[in-house]
Amino acid sequence: MGSRGDTLKLRDVARAAGVSEITVSRVIRSKGPIAEETRQRVEAAIRAIGYVPNRLAGALRTTAVSELVGVVLPSLNNIVFLDVLRGLNEVLSAGGFRSVISVTEYSPEAECELVRSLLSWRPAAIIVTGRQHEAATERLLSEASVPVIELMDTDGAPIDIAIGMSHAKAGQDMARHLLGRGYRRFGYIGPVLTKDLRAGARCDAFVETLRAAGAQLLGTETMSGPSPVQGGRDALARLLAAHPAIEAVYFSNDDAAIGGLFHCMAEGIAVPERLAIAGFNGLDVGQLMPKPLTTTLTRRFEMGCRAGAAILDQLAGIEVPKISDLGFELIPGATA
Amino acid sequence: MGSRGDTLKLRDVARAAGVSEITVSRVIRSKGPIAEETRQRVEAAIRAIGYVPNRLAGALRTTAVSELVGVVLPSLNNIVFLDVLRGLNEVLSAGGFRSVISVTEYSPEAECELVRSLLSWRPAAIIVTGRQHEAATERLLSEASVPVIELMDTDGAPIDIAIGMSHAKAGQDMARHLLGRGYRRFGYIGPVLTKDLRAGARCDAFVETLRAAGAQLLGTETMSGPSPVQGGRDALARLLAAHPAIEAVYFSNDDAAIGGLFHCMAEGIAVPERLAIAGFNGLDVGQLMPKPLTTTLTRRFEMGCRAGAAILDQLAGIEVPKISDLGFELIPGATA
Repeated sequence: MGSRGDTLKLRDVARAAGVSEITVSRVIRSKGPIAEETRQRVEAAIRAIGYVPNRLAGALRTTAVSELVGVVLPSLNNIVFLDVLRGLNEVLSAGGFRSVISVTEYSPEAECELVRSLLSWRPAAIIVTGRQHEAATERLLSEASVPVIELMDTDGAPIDIAIGMSHAKAGQDMARHLLGRGYRRFGYIGPVLTKDLRAGARCDAFVETLRAAGAQLLGTETMSGPSPVQGGRDALARLLAAHPAIEAVYFSNDDAAIGGLFHCMAEGIAVPERLAIAGFNGLDVGQLMPKPLTTTLTRRFEMGCRAGAAILDQLAGIEVPKISDLGFELIPGATA
Repeated sequence: MGSRGDTLKLRDVARAAGVSEITVSRVIRSKGPIAEETRQRVEAAIRAIGYVPNRLAGALRTTAVSELVGVVLPSLNNIVFLDVLRGLNEVLSAGGFRSVISVTEYSPEAECELVRSLLSWRPAAIIVTGRQHEAATERLLSEASVPVIELMDTDGAPIDIAIGMSHAKAGQDMARHLLGRGYRRFGYIGPVLTKDLRAGARCDAFVETLRAAGAQLLGTETMSGPSPVQGGRDALARLLAAHPAIEAVYFSNDDAAIGGLFHCMAEGIAVPERLAIAGFNGLDVGQLMPKPLTTTLTRRFEMGCRAGAAILDQLAGIEVPKISDLGFELIPGATA
């Protein structure tokens, strides 16, 4: 590690470009009238000597808004959040912003600490996942002087801006679809419901719709461990051993449903003839299997893009809707 | 959005806790002797009134190191980088640091701009992916006054610290394994080689080892599009149409190899009897298939953890090895 890049000053750039320091400063901050030829000369000098402008100091000195956006995700164990981040980064980076990422591992207490910590960075905006937070977190977010985005979920009244979909409606729609196919004896496989509240909302609406139609939920199994594919595969083995009469199983996500399909392949259980399987998310890997998975396609990349756009709009003074419901699409597939 | 949290001052906390402002400041900065009872009273007051300490200003005022670590990744389209981030975040967050994430989409020019931009935040450390960079990027990194980690790859001399594995050795080992199984006519499926340089290094060593053993590479296919599973499935169809005599195909990653397996399932091609398939990464989804994928297990989570630990050590003045080769493990599986 050298230290030259760290100690270069505005005046070194000014000398190299043959202009005044104020001109260099204007080019760096994109402020004030600058001739195109001068701008190019300064930028060439910056590249030539390896000068790094100190934006952090600049942001504080001018009390301009920071270029960091705080993002609080429940987990980095799921490609779904990567899709959201990808959309978010695409829009934010085009606007000159960067994401600072924190992970709660689905703990509401951890969320509160992380939100407090991220706010101490004076971010340009803060993004949290879902709509349920501890009272202290709600207060921190509602008193923050920056845009607050609650992502993934649109059921209920948002703190500031909610972008996502209705998980209750997704659970209801899948129940109706499976009932329409003639199934009457169901099973459910998902995480501990108090942990992933969006999976819980889908499950509640799914079960309620079954009951209203006079169908039965014969049993449920809870997944554990770090791998959702492994969790789904093991949980289906346990569920079928305990309730052999089950005709159709609703999994909390596609990874778990794919694990369930692998169990059926290995055990010679015909899908969907003997057992129907449905997932949630619409991942590529499920759609590219020889029998595409019956599932609900969620618009994760679009949610990330929309969140990025809402932040840029709000910071530019353009009004943003309180709730953006991006909906979902039921994919009939071939496994149910 | 309210603004109360934003305008609360040290003196509001001091008043609520019944202590002096300097005492509150000491508690926030963990500096100087403070009675445990006083510390608890101040922290309770901070929580009660919702005060958010401004760490950014603090960091600059005391010229302490920033708590942000810049991370430059090639893509957010691959669960592999999520595993790395997960390990990194686990160690960094325990040390009070946060990741600022940027994505190059495998463009060396974008990498240079992103490194320059991240350095302007005066991060505590910077992490880039791989060992090949533009000359301007190399210079920025070698002149940076913070720890620089090159992640994923250990072939060659690092700028500062390299943590990863030898991709050349991984390609060589898989070639030897497949030759040992008796295959002689090979195909390769991967991204454009100039794009993912680590996949390129594996492919080069794979092909060289085949040639040295007198075996043949009959053909290669390039994947395109956003989905590696789809890319692998389509590329295998094209490869087999052009070169029906191929006995074994080496895919640049497990996602693509799983796409290839799906093609074989759909077309009734017996694996490994008619066609052998090998991947790279050792993802769960490949290992949980009825016939586990033949592949190379990479230690992505561990690479992230090790990078986080190297940063914490280096900042604490503990010496860190220039190169940490975490190795890999060939998984024989059942598809080759």
